[in-house]
Amino acid sequence: MSTSGMTGPSIPSLIDQACLIVHGPDQPGIVSHVSAVITRNGGNITALDQYSSNDQDGEFFQRIVFHRDNLVTAMEDIQADLAETLAPYGMQWSLSDRSVPKRMAILTSSGDHCLLDLLWRHRRGDLPVTVPMVISNHTTTAEDVRSFGVPFFHVPSQKGPDKSESEAEILRLLKGNVDFVVLARYMQIISNDFLEKLGVPVINIHHSFLPAFVGADPYRRAWERGVKLIGATAHYVTEDLDEGPIIEQDTVRVTHADSVTDLRQRGAEVERSVLSRAVSWHAQDRVIRTGNHTIVF
Amino acid sequence: MSTSGMTGPSIPSLIDQACLIVHGPDQPGIVSHVSAVITRNGGNITALDQYSSNDQDGEFFQRIVFHRDNLVTAMEDIQADLAETLAPYGMQWSLSDRSVPKRMAILTSSGDHCLLDLLWRHRRGDLPVTVPMVISNHTTTAEDVRSFGVPFFHVPSQKGPDKSESEAEILRLLKGNVDFVVLARYMQIISNDFLEKLGVPVINIHHSFLPAFVGADPYRRAWERGVKLIGATAHYVTEDLDEGPIIEQDTVRVTHADSVTDLRQRGAEVERSVLSRAVSWHAQDRVIRTGNHTIVF
Amino acid sequence: MSTSGMTGPSIPSLIDQACLIVHGPDQPGIVSHVSAVITRNGGNITALDQYSSNDQDGEFFQRIVFHRDNLVTAMEDIQADLAETLAPYGMQWSLSDRSVPKRMAILTSSGDHCLLDLLWRHRRGDLPVTVPMVISNHTTTAEDVRSFGVPFFHVPSQKGPDKSESEAEILRLLKGNVDFVVLARYMQIISNDFLEKLGVPVINIHHSFLPAFVGADPYRRAWERGVKLIGATAHYVTEDLDEGPIIEQDTVRVTHADSVTDLRQRGAEVERSVLSRAVSWHAQDRVIRTGNHTIVF
Amino acid sequence: MSTSGMTGPSIPSLIDQACLIVHGPDQPGIVSHVSAVITRNGGNITALDQYSSNDQDGEFFQRIVFHRDNLVTAMEDIQADLAETLAPYGMQWSLSDRSVPKRMAILTSSGDHCLLDLLWRHRRGDLPVTVPMVISNHTTTAEDVRSFGVPFFHVPSQKGPDKSESEAEILRLLKGNVDFVVLARYMQIISNDFLEKLGVPVINIHHSFLPAFVGADPYRRAWERGVKLIGATAHYVTEDLDEGPIIEQDTVRVTHADSVTDLRQRGAEVERSVLSRAVSWHAQDRVIRTGNHTIVF
Repeated sequence: MSTSGMTGPSIPSLIDQACLIVHGPDQPGIVSHVSAVITRNGGNITALDQYSSNDQDGEFFQRIVFHRDNLVTAMEDIQADLAETLAPYGMQWSLSDRSVPKRMAILTSSGDHCLLDLLWRHRRGDLPVTVPMVISNHTTTAEDVRSFGVPFFHVPSQKGPDKSESEAEILRLLKGNVDFVVLARYMQIISNDFLEKLGVPVINIHHSFLPAFVGADPYRRAWERGVKLIGATAHYVTEDLDEGPIIEQDTVRVTHADSVTDLRQRGAEVERSVLSRAVSWHAQDRVIRTGNHTIVF
Repeated sequence: MSTSGMTGPSIPSLIDQACLIVHGPDQPGIVSHVSAVITRNGGNITALDQYSSNDQDGEFFQRIVFHRDNLVTAMEDIQADLAETLAPYGMQWSLSDRSVPKRMAILTSSGDHCLLDLLWRHRRGDLPVTVPMVISNHTTTAEDVRSFGVPFFHVPSQKGPDKSESEAEILRLLKGNVDFVVLARYMQIISNDFLEKLGVPVINIHHSFLPAFVGADPYRRAWERGVKLIGATAHYVTEDLDEGPIIEQDTVRVTHADSVTDLRQRGAEVERSVLSRAVSWHAQDRVIRTGNHTIVF
Repeated sequence: MSTSGMTGPSIPSLIDQACLIVHGPDQPGIVSHVSAVITRNGGNITALDQYSSNDQDGEFFQRIVFHRDNLVTAMEDIQADLAETLAPYGMQWSLSDRSVPKRMAILTSSGDHCLLDLLWRHRRGDLPVTVPMVISNHTTTAEDVRSFGVPFFHVPSQKGPDKSESEAEILRLLKGNVDFVVLARYMQIISNDFLEKLGVPVINIHHSFLPAFVGADPYRRAWERGVKLIGATAHYVTEDLDEGPIIEQDTVRVTHADSVTDLRQRGAEVERSVLSRAVSWHAQDRVIRTGNHTIVF
Repeated sequence: MSTSGMTGPSIPSLIDQACLIVHGPDQPGIVSHVSAVITRNGGNITALDQYSSNDQDGEFFQRIVFHRDNLVTAMEDIQADLAETLAPYGMQWSLSDRSVPKRMAILTSSGDHCLLDLLWRHRRGDLPVTVPMVISNHTTTAEDVRSFGVPFFHVPSQKGPDKSESEAEILRLLKGNVDFVVLARYMQIISNDFLEKLGVPVINIHHSFLPAFVGADPYRRAWERGVKLIGATAHYVTEDLDEGPIIEQDTVRVTHADSVTDLRQRGAEVERSVLSRAVSWHAQDRVIRTGNHTIVF
């Protein structure tokens, strides 16, 4: 999550704003120590969220947003102070300049609703990211993507169970160029090897209310079960398919009169709104992963 | 669902109102035939819901509410006319006098939220039912139940896997006295044998968004999975545990800060509102079962 | 709403499907008469919704969808039969061929979220309409609109209170070319004279939960009042600003931490989903106006 | 909100937990100073919520929950330290022992749904309050209230516009005995004089989505306007009827088929759940009033 040395576009309204994430074993005085670092480095805390998994001996999670005039010139000092102050407590932390947008790549297949929704929101200024590329195993959305001024790369899916060549090609495109990847209805299985080599968070949108309807064709199975609500789930991708930490979920009402096609259409609404919320929160460093859970501030 | 011969309390606002349910193979002219029967017997249709599972050769479902002066004196003629008219089409149908409330028994364990909610709503006049009895394997709710003027029977749960004796006692209490049974957080497995002998519909409230978290302790498992919504499901009980036709479901938002206890508390809200809707719809003949699905008009 | 003589595009999946709307004073036998007309003209009813405003002497509303082989050749006969059958009852009715999409014009200003959402849903096939034109008093969305293959016309707003010239120009573009008009965040007042001359339904999206925050700048006023939910309302436009019959509404949760800008951003979500539902229902003849109310089937 | 000297029941699970509310002009270092006070007095922060109305020169709001062994013995020292530390910054603050429940009186009229819901939640242990009394201008709910072990006082409403005598009687009952008052569908206007003399917060549930349908009979007016959602609003009572700071709101969907009676019945659901959330948050010191707004942590 280091952003040093980047000279890309910045977000004017967020200049001189920093975001600090701290987590680790809970212990008395942590809040005091962390806030003291910010104060003595000239920062003013404007938002602070905190959660402890237990009253005593739990896990501690904190997100602090602070304002500091000429933040860029102070980042190094603040980082050094944090490192020294927090070292005795075994806390993990990361500090980011909020005016530097995260670089988000989108992987997609032929469906366009999640993809276009993200690109629209980005164009409207609702997502604090840049979109260096969209990669798809189909070409159907190429023209749309490029109309947003975003590069589109076509990497056909490899036949057969071995996806190593297509994954290698995708890796060559992504590597070093992105801070996180969004699977916007990308209908290919991703290997652990790919995830490890990629080394940045990957967010997927699953078209069901997990853990209901894990796996393929959830709308058909929802229809067969006769459910009265359908849903969508945005989660981080791990080696266990559909089992990664959930970031956001939502549901929408359906009736006996809705066909599988109706479910897909209504579900598309939920998918795009759930995914956009998850992406927005991730891009703002509002999501902290802990085991198979997420803390969302 | 026959109500002939009953001389119990009636619902004044629904006097002279009938409800007709028709379902079977879809075929041209059915709507016309059914409505003609009502018209020529002096009825006036005030509500009509209809659903066909397919444009052609599907299954046909219809619920008609009609007003007929002196309905009681006309029921027999209307039934005879329906029988004769619908016989050639292989349709199933049932006709009920809406002023005769269905008799609802409640089975419960020690939790009181669903039980009290149903009793309150009944007392307020929001549920068109009578409540001839509450049966529980605990005694904790006896006083509350009786304060509503409702008989309470304690049938302790039988130790060991064989529940035949306690089930037999419950059956003796229910048999002939009720039109449907509600399991309001009743924590005992019910045998197929019991269901068959009982012979009336049984509605259960499951404390998860089915099919997620089928089985025991769903709130704990929901917490372990880190879901962002929890839910509840009201369904008809069949021989397959948690697999019966779903009548109603709903969800409510939870966060990382919610403990298993918080989930139970928030879930209790959803359970009682989902169950009360399902009961209300069933009591008004708004729910038609078809295979493992329900049509809810 | 007559569509005779049109030779435009048709919707293949809806060929041979008709939609019949009937409303007027409730009276015994209406359902029977209407369904008999359909049956004797070879139609098979596949969906039927009905509502009576009162058990006796109320207003009757009905929407029937039926399938009829070679519908086009039978329309004239069915219309003649309906006219003759319903004349004695003083009922209003309209019959439409569902495969003929309604022609929808969109009027908009500089905001794009509702506009683009409608165009994109239309392209996906989710809205059974054609879009003959978009008219705006700004040029900012011209390129986007045309990228969907839809003509864009710029009619600058007239300075001063008299809008008769710009309205006349808009009327010249619309007149005869559209079946209904959608105001997708069109920030100009529309005169009664315009509405009367236009002669087709106009749907507006208001960016508040009406009747809260009638008038200008509802997000700012919602923020000032400290509400915990914001909403949007789609309604038919009448001579009374923000007072026309409501088709659909929805709300979304906000908190003390949301600024007016945040409210606008979150509200944009609700606006587009509320408007798209209202448009979809209107396009499917699911909405019947009665006084200042709507019946939505 | 001082609770010193009380020797009433305490909440075992909250023993040794304190809640500190701080608000005032935002300025660098506040978080650091406050957390240092807690640390040096042996406390460990377990939850912290914070909000600043502006990046710079805004208003600062903070709620801290901390654990401190033998809290009771330390309260005085912590209060003295806070007073000294915060004095230079012009901050308002209050410190409470979370194990001491707030004393909540309920004023009601003849409707029972909000009243019973609060009493039942209290009995379940879902609300951290005691209920020293229920006061009503009707006697219909007396038996129910007393069955919960809660004293019921009947104060008939005074005829005519002058309510000073009945208000005086209510004041004599409340004065000194309660920490806040809930109007659970209390259908009497309350005078400013009463509010001033009472001197504790009063929470009301209004049966509409404010500011829609301010004033009398909101369900009838909602029906007349033809809205598609109805709502409820819990707010602090001020001298301006229905204009006080909103704590919580929610809405529920209705249709053209719902009568005014249906709206009242569906609305009762929303009223009780909105009111119970507002009461629960207030009882936990989660709500801070600022002008006509509330901060809800």
